[in-house]
Amino acid sequence: MRVKDENKQEAIFRATIKLVNEIGLVASSVAKIAREARVSPATIYIYYQNKEDLLVSTYLRIKREMGQAMLQNLNTDQPLRDIFRQAWFAMFDFFKSHQDYFRFVDQFSNSPFISKLETKEVEDAFGPLMALVQKGIEQKIIKNVNLNLLAVFLFYPIYTLSNARLCPNWKLDEANIDQAFSMAWDAIKL
Amino acid sequence: MRVKDENKQEAIFRATIKLVNEIGLVASSVAKIAREARVSPATIYIYYQNKEDLLVSTYLRIKREMGQAMLQNLNTDQPLRDIFRQAWFAMFDFFKSHQDYFRFVDQFSNSPFISKLETKEVEDAFGPLMALVQKGIEQKIIKNVNLNLLAVFLFYPIYTLSNARLCPNWKLDEANIDQAFSMAWDAIKL
Repeated sequence: MRVKDENKQEAIFRATIKLVNEIGLVASSVAKIAREARVSPATIYIYYQNKEDLLVSTYLRIKREMGQAMLQNLNTDQPLRDIFRQAWFAMFDFFKSHQDYFRFVDQFSNSPFISKLETKEVEDAFGPLMALVQKGIEQKIIKNVNLNLLAVFLFYPIYTLSNARLCPNWKLDEANIDQAFSMAWDAIKL
Repeated sequence: MRVKDENKQEAIFRATIKLVNEIGLVASSVAKIAREARVSPATIYIYYQNKEDLLVSTYLRIKREMGQAMLQNLNTDQPLRDIFRQAWFAMFDFFKSHQDYFRFVDQFSNSPFISKLETKEVEDAFGPLMALVQKGIEQKIIKNVNLNLLAVFLFYPIYTLSNARLCPNWKLDEANIDQAFSMAWDAIKL
């Protein structure tokens, strides 16, 4: 079965995540990813310089999708707390339907590849959200602390709570997600 | 060079972490770990049933060491907030001197091996700390919510903040660690 040209990049993206989740970052070679995606290795090299470029690009696309999921349909006329609450729920929905993404992200985040990332590219994905955080600081709604620190309490819990292996006794329902958001908000609010 | 008998288990523990961090969980075989530890595969099978048992045992030992590090020298006569603050600082110290541990833990937590764990064994490692959390709930100092949820805000941020790759712009100094603890406390306090 030949994959259509316009779908090749998509197939490579899916294959990269699938293979890395199955056999790990080190063992995943361009040749094996090509086989999994049903394209030739040469096709991968049209889009990506090398394995590192492929992995970094895959990570960035996931981050961009995450950022988009949080911002989609976001009503920014609401009070800041409600905006973040809405984005928080959107992220849980996103993780629910993309369980494979965060296994990849976890592996990538703990590999030397992450040092190859331009911080700017990651920041761009979450730019509009971080601008809202900045606005909250200026309006003295959010604590005036390091943005990394705010992200650890505002965004990372979504990630941990979505991982059933880490939180086996916590049910992912609306009331619980709302309760968790209240705690995140208590952590970051002034 | 022959490793002394009493040091063999220690050598196997170190080799498991080193190899898994270098080549991943899937590629790390008992044979390769034995070579890294400078013992025969047969020696590994004296202590462990198979690769799964070796990995699970390694994870549990790390968890136990973490639990001990948090509880060591803990003055439980202090107010609850101060007890957790002291444990929080102890954990940062622990992670600082065991960078290799948490790369292993991350890989393990995102692998199917984690489902092989008895929840009870992990709970035992943090038992005294979770008993203090329970006491805080009863005394209406800590929010009466799921223990997994409390752990996500009280313990996981230590883990994320200790990872320089995830928090490149946050400096691990005493004032910052204290500020981060205040945020964790704000999240969990009633």
